[in-house]
Amino acid sequence: MNADGAMIIFQPSRRRGEVPRGITLVAASRILGADIEALCGEKRGCGKCIVQILDGFDSTSGIESKMTHASPWQEKESRFISPSDRKEGFRLGCVAKVMGDLIVFVPESSLAGKPIIRKTARFIKIDHNPAVRPYHIQVESPSSENPTSDLERICQVLALRYGLKDLRIDLMALRQLPNALRRGNWTVTVSVWMGREIIRVQPGKGANRYGLAIDIGTTSIAGYLCDLSTMAVIDTITMTNPQIRYGEDVMSRIAYLTMHEDGLQKLSDELISGLNRLVGEAIEGTYPEENQRNEPGSPPDEKKTFPCLTREDIEDVTIGCNTAMHHILLGLDPRHVGLAPFPPVVHRSLDIKARDIGLRISPGAYVYILPIEAGFVGADNVGVLLSEEPYNSDKVQLIIDIGTNGELVLGNSKRLISCSCATGPALEGSHLTHGMRAAPGAIERIEIDPVTKEVDYKVIGRDAWRKYSAPDEMEARGICGSGVLDVLAELYRAGIITDSGAFQLEALDGHPRFRKHPETHVSEFILAFAEETRIGKNIVITQKDIRQIQLAKAALYAGCKLMMKRLGIEKADVVKIAGAFGTYVDRHKALIMGLFPHDDPDQVVCIGNAAGDGCRVALLNIQKRKEADWVARHVEHLDLALEPDFQQAFIDAMRLPGRMEFFSRNIPHPIDLTH
Amino acid sequence: MNADGAMIIFQPSRRRGEVPRGITLVAASRILGADIEALCGEKRGCGKCIVQILDGFDSTSGIESKMTHASPWQEKESRFISPSDRKEGFRLGCVAKVMGDLIVFVPESSLAGKPIIRKTARFIKIDHNPAVRPYHIQVESPSSENPTSDLERICQVLALRYGLKDLRIDLMALRQLPNALRRGNWTVTVSVWMGREIIRVQPGKGANRYGLAIDIGTTSIAGYLCDLSTMAVIDTITMTNPQIRYGEDVMSRIAYLTMHEDGLQKLSDELISGLNRLVGEAIEGTYPEENQRNEPGSPPDEKKTFPCLTREDIEDVTIGCNTAMHHILLGLDPRHVGLAPFPPVVHRSLDIKARDIGLRISPGAYVYILPIEAGFVGADNVGVLLSEEPYNSDKVQLIIDIGTNGELVLGNSKRLISCSCATGPALEGSHLTHGMRAAPGAIERIEIDPVTKEVDYKVIGRDAWRKYSAPDEMEARGICGSGVLDVLAELYRAGIITDSGAFQLEALDGHPRFRKHPETHVSEFILAFAEETRIGKNIVITQKDIRQIQLAKAALYAGCKLMMKRLGIEKADVVKIAGAFGTYVDRHKALIMGLFPHDDPDQVVCIGNAAGDGCRVALLNIQKRKEADWVARHVEHLDLALEPDFQQAFIDAMRLPGRMEFFSRNIPHPIDLTH
Repeated sequence: MNADGAMIIFQPSRRRGEVPRGITLVAASRILGADIEALCGEKRGCGKCIVQILDGFDSTSGIESKMTHASPWQEKESRFISPSDRKEGFRLGCVAKVMGDLIVFVPESSLAGKPIIRKTARFIKIDHNPAVRPYHIQVESPSSENPTSDLERICQVLALRYGLKDLRIDLMALRQLPNALRRGNWTVTVSVWMGREIIRVQPGKGANRYGLAIDIGTTSIAGYLCDLSTMAVIDTITMTNPQIRYGEDVMSRIAYLTMHEDGLQKLSDELISGLNRLVGEAIEGTYPEENQRNEPGSPPDEKKTFPCLTREDIEDVTIGCNTAMHHILLGLDPRHVGLAPFPPVVHRSLDIKARDIGLRISPGAYVYILPIEAGFVGADNVGVLLSEEPYNSDKVQLIIDIGTNGELVLGNSKRLISCSCATGPALEGSHLTHGMRAAPGAIERIEIDPVTKEVDYKVIGRDAWRKYSAPDEMEARGICGSGVLDVLAELYRAGIITDSGAFQLEALDGHPRFRKHPETHVSEFILAFAEETRIGKNIVITQKDIRQIQLAKAALYAGCKLMMKRLGIEKADVVKIAGAFGTYVDRHKALIMGLFPHDDPDQVVCIGNAAGDGCRVALLNIQKRKEADWVARHVEHLDLALEPDFQQAFIDAMRLPGRMEFFSRNIPHPIDLTH
Repeated sequence: MNADGAMIIFQPSRRRGEVPRGITLVAASRILGADIEALCGEKRGCGKCIVQILDGFDSTSGIESKMTHASPWQEKESRFISPSDRKEGFRLGCVAKVMGDLIVFVPESSLAGKPIIRKTARFIKIDHNPAVRPYHIQVESPSSENPTSDLERICQVLALRYGLKDLRIDLMALRQLPNALRRGNWTVTVSVWMGREIIRVQPGKGANRYGLAIDIGTTSIAGYLCDLSTMAVIDTITMTNPQIRYGEDVMSRIAYLTMHEDGLQKLSDELISGLNRLVGEAIEGTYPEENQRNEPGSPPDEKKTFPCLTREDIEDVTIGCNTAMHHILLGLDPRHVGLAPFPPVVHRSLDIKARDIGLRISPGAYVYILPIEAGFVGADNVGVLLSEEPYNSDKVQLIIDIGTNGELVLGNSKRLISCSCATGPALEGSHLTHGMRAAPGAIERIEIDPVTKEVDYKVIGRDAWRKYSAPDEMEARGICGSGVLDVLAELYRAGIITDSGAFQLEALDGHPRFRKHPETHVSEFILAFAEETRIGKNIVITQKDIRQIQLAKAALYAGCKLMMKRLGIEKADVVKIAGAFGTYVDRHKALIMGLFPHDDPDQVVCIGNAAGDGCRVALLNIQKRKEADWVARHVEHLDLALEPDFQQAFIDAMRLPGRMEFFSRNIPHPIDLTH
């Protein structure tokens, strides 16, 4: 390494590289494409560029020296950073300068461009049978003839008028009771959970009763705010899983908490604060000014009513997530889930007081946690099953939920098999040379001319494709998940790679987009030239990147193959692609690259965030909660690691199938099928 | 008032009087008999004498001036008082000087001499049927054939071997599970509450399972630490109710929280921290050095085993208390209980997670709160009923529980009536000129010679009576509850007062113990001369004091009378006296002074802290918890305030009955009948 340079690694983007010493961290982030937001133009005026220095290291000696590898603290930073945050290594990115090798964490709030997570709720039919029901009742005021207690007073009426017997009451609701009765002039609205327990008492006719269905993914979290009376989805809120700073995938987070004594506590706290922020955002969105801010330029809608919720109005929450997230959420040691035979701490669904995990909603409310299937097939997959109900269908369904992990279900009303396959995050755009999140500037669509091998592409945040734009209008920053799916199919279709994934060297010889990197000697194909990017250099796909994508898709394909073998079928009747991913996958290109074994694009449907839909179904219909426990135990789990045929199937699946019938340029541009 | 003097009121003792300005608060406490402990002899070396200045006031103008009425803060006080306590008005009593009128709170820890609360557990027969039962089980370790979860693994064994089906698990126990299983090599001890919920998991064969039965009185709190397996009472712990700083009786505490926005929170927090200290003391007592410290000089007992508990080993708690304490404990607004028709927030018994009220015991454990009968007849009275079971007896029992309030039950298996009577705290020694707590130096026994009218007495902390001692050996400081009971009977028996309670002026004329106070002109009778006291002046009983005691006993007597009338009887078959009070009351003197309507001392028994016994019964036998809810609803409640005859009965009961048959000097000294 150059003596004047320093190695910087940005998290969670994993962007890394050498930068000159003495430049600010914001400047370093530009060079490495990990853009930190600096609204004020580095005038130390906005405080947007707060970052956290996680570690200093000496890439030669390995010695850590967190403090001296960044320039000293300056008093002006105190304006934006509290003393306790300062101790944790937080700095202003426009002030702190690179003095040596560093690992720098860029919080969500400091990233330029909010991530684009497409998890809007789709329409699904749900029977209305929520866990929490309101009862509006009037009682007699106490007299010397009837001096009985407040609770017995309302319970008498609830039993007489609604047949609610043997009701329990939560302590927090009991605390609300005496003053609610008197403020409401002996009229109250009582929220009863599962017909068993009073969880809230409001004076008079309480109006607001809402629930939140939350799908916690390894990378992102989606919350659906639902009206428990009308079942309407009021808002969809998405955020990055804040645990991402402790590792991008489940195994690295489990590794973190194994290495740190307070690791589980930290990871759990981080997740819970994230969920509390999500609840906060859901509530804020119900206030008029917030609604209007969300839709700039839209005409004022007089008929629109804003419920103006408080945390107390969130009376029910359902949560689905993979097993590791599930355990961390509940503060359960997830280390054993990471080791064969991967036993979880608990399978069944759980009803937990929100306050017991620190979730700030209605103080007496419960959180329903979906059951999990097996160590590596979690509650998120149960959510998928609940919304798709393959167990109620004669047709054999193959449901592929691609997140940071791939979870598969195959079967019908006769038999259901599930498995988990380690696709890794390559399909989401991570771990590639220029992989990035789905944020503005990310290449999300690619087409390559088979003759000229010229590349056309589209970036998030700009409607016009490359060929309709001037180079400097593109401002490309990297390639995200949907672009990754395109690129392999397009490279193959254009004859740039063979069906084994290797570059066709003779065909590319002398092509301006192809070269061997002068230092690493790795072959790479240029997708966007430096002049079209914001990172000041070419955006490329390397031979190594192609192998990463092949490994991921092979894991998925082999998993499907082995499940079909187990079920004794050659082909599923229908293939459903779920996940945030599932909302933008191009079915034809998925078949070209061999993401799963199938041959008919008409039988492939994208179902969007089915795991989230399942949480929503469980929120609004308690019958589905029973179904969840049943199906979680009913699904057979296939452990790929134990299958003797897996290795061979995996190797076979590395190949690109080359289904030329899908190569016509007349296939339409992908349509979002979830709406 | 003298311009050089200042009025000081000490709380909770209510000792008040004028002291010279410029003296320290410790010196002022000596003058007024509210002794503050100063181990170091006021050398500012021990920090024992910490007091809290609640208010400064101007007794003439009524203007408050907390700050200027005590001398300024001195730096040396910081050694013992934190900045936050300083803000709350805490000072060192040996540093802070009187500069004006003040109200000063003396915390329990700063009082000279620990209070003596006699609430040891007596033997009562209890069927062993505790709420929490341990199950020691072994399970198979997970394998690829059986990779099921930890919870399902133990539930299978519990269902198969013990028939425990549909078990829930508390989140805190679930958190213990994975590591307990592995540390115990797949052998664990599972604590199951009510056959329904796993509340704790310990690795291997967990040894300790204890419970705590807590009786919360207005003035004092008693806890019985019980072995849930053997039912043995391991220890009895007593403490002053820390809420006493907010008022000595229930009504003044309710008044406090009505006047202060955070009043309920403060009172509740104070009580919960008190209970947490009580749990801490119970645990400390199980460690060897602590046991030995409790019994100085006792020979080392090799056979004695010390369980050495932790908070986690307390797996169950039962609590009984009056309605106001009950509400404050649970954070329920008690204001409405203080106003006619006195409706409580809840009657029924409650099972509450200890953590929900901040009680630090086993993290998954429940607290069982006894049901309450009516606004002013609380769960403590239900405790009395549970331990005495009048509803299972043919004999008509009159049970008198005398605490700061008097609670009465009359009846048998056919019918039960309860009532509450406002005796006020006079019977406990409060509100009298020289009333004090049962602490060293308190006069607890009195005899007066009918001829010479000379007084003999005994103080707590000294075995020898006055007539066997030199005057300066007595060090009397005041008169406590048991002395109060003696004094009225003795004054009457010795012909010093008439049956109307008035001093027999002609018989006392010129007697050295009788005088009219030169300033107040109130008649008073000297019980102990200044030379025999630590307060440097005579300890007297005034005409006003006698009236106070008469009012208290009349309330009790009239209550009994009206209940008997309601039941249509002239006399109860047996009279039971409960309460701390009940352990030292002299049955004969109680009949002489007419504490209750009865005539046969052989039918009067003292049953000690029956309310506490009832909590213990409920702790060890869940059948009694069902009985509690049944009896709480079954007892008829008599509201004395609504009885037209009460006024007349009360006036009649002021008279001393003069049952001369009990006047023999041969009656034995009172024996503690509870052992």
